Amino acid sequence: MNETLSILRNHRSVRQFTDTPLTEEEILTLVEAAQSASTSSFIQAYSIIGVKNRDTKKELARLAGGQDYVLENGHFFIFCADLHRHTVAAEMEDVSISDTISTTEKFIVATVDASLAAQNASIAAESLGLGICYIGGLRNNIEAVSELLQLPDHVIPLYGLAVGHPAGETAIKPRLPVPAVYMEETYANDKDAKVRLTAYNETISDYYKERTGGKRNDSWTSQMTNMLATPSRLHMKEFVQGKGMMKS
Amino acid sequence: MNETLSILRNHRSVRQFTDTPLTEEEILTLVEAAQSASTSSFIQAYSIIGVKNRDTKKELARLAGGQDYVLENGHFFIFCADLHRHTVAAEMEDVSISDTISTTEKFIVATVDASLAAQNASIAAESLGLGICYIGGLRNNIEAVSELLQLPDHVIPLYGLAVGHPAGETAIKPRLPVPAVYMEETYANDKDAKVRLTAYNETISDYYKERTGGKRNDSWTSQMTNMLATPSRLHMKEFVQGKGMMKS
Repeated sequence: MNETLSILRNHRSVRQFTDTPLTEEEILTLVEAAQSASTSSFIQAYSIIGVKNRDTKKELARLAGGQDYVLENGHFFIFCADLHRHTVAAEMEDVSISDTISTTEKFIVATVDASLAAQNASIAAESLGLGICYIGGLRNNIEAVSELLQLPDHVIPLYGLAVGHPAGETAIKPRLPVPAVYMEETYANDKDAKVRLTAYNETISDYYKERTGGKRNDSWTSQMTNMLATPSRLHMKEFVQGKGMMKS
Repeated sequence: MNETLSILRNHRSVRQFTDTPLTEEEILTLVEAAQSASTSSFIQAYSIIGVKNRDTKKELARLAGGQDYVLENGHFFIFCADLHRHTVAAEMEDVSISDTISTTEKFIVATVDASLAAQNASIAAESLGLGICYIGGLRNNIEAVSELLQLPDHVIPLYGLAVGHPAGETAIKPRLPVPAVYMEETYANDKDAKVRLTAYNETISDYYKERTGGKRNDSWTSQMTNMLATPSRLHMKEFVQGKGMMKS
């Protein structure tokens, strides 16, 4: 296994960091790695906000639901789907693009673009011995996050990325069995899916038992259905549309 | 620069491949790398379809707009946002999750999850000396792609990924200047944005001139506004909602 594959396969989210901040050079390395990712038709439809100010981080931590590691890390990035830059281009070229950037298609393009970039930044960080954790919790209070960062229309803060020097070890969580996720030619049928999920439930149950000294007894299907029983972040559609995207 | 950073920074899309297929081991390596990516609350909301059948690839190439490299490559993957598996889990646990998986929030979660996985697969491929190209063109005829792959409700084919042994060299495209994409504390203002885009236009114009022996004279802002002047794939919203997602 080459060095890169080994980094990819050894990923685990890090939620405890030392207080050493990332250097300017490290921040630049991560941003440039992010920018090197593929981008749909060269559109580069994302922006990254870096936060160092402790008061801003404190507020972001509160808005995300009180996660310590939003405040205590080496650097905090927010990845945004961004078509605002293209409205500036449209002004420069005197061309109207408003019917296009308000489509669901372009919202998907920008969300995918931002995520390919974020994953590149994550891998770059891990290659430098840093740890990372994605923070979807920012969407709990997305309107307030957007105001705090002064995001204009056509910019959606998708998630944060806490990066820093790991303090302590975390375990790699076993993923779904390959045949549950990877199929050839056509989508696999549900009969097999249940058999696979049942086997996977045992793997996950063993993983939790081992990590908690037998205290946590949970399966993947119960964990998922507990989480999905109650809808969350029902404001997302209105927020995104309010920013002028995903309207048609 | 370590080996991984060098792979990330050397990315360019490859659109010409030799006829050597990926080995089963290479396919598995890519899928397992994909699965190692971060996933929102462990939801693992994506599936990957691998296509080897030449007739299926021919049809996908036609549906994507006639791109040769959808047919001629070492392996063709389709990355899908997928919450169907969770409906199977819900059946097993006898819990209703329909109000949750139909939200915009969960569509975003699944799209991000799939994209982090896809980018991991891409980097794994490049670490093995393979080349990759994302194929957004599958969304041109997303309904037909979905039928061809027999995708059930709550599964959205987001894009393809053509992978293979590169035939010929392509150049790295210069990205937006770092300050256009990366900002600290708050979103930067538009006055600076125009200055930056004007400078970037020169970079891109030089890049195209050099590559085409002076034949192509194009700037980034003109390329973008030409593309964005006419809306495309206006069927996306209806398709996604028809699959039971992004409804609320």
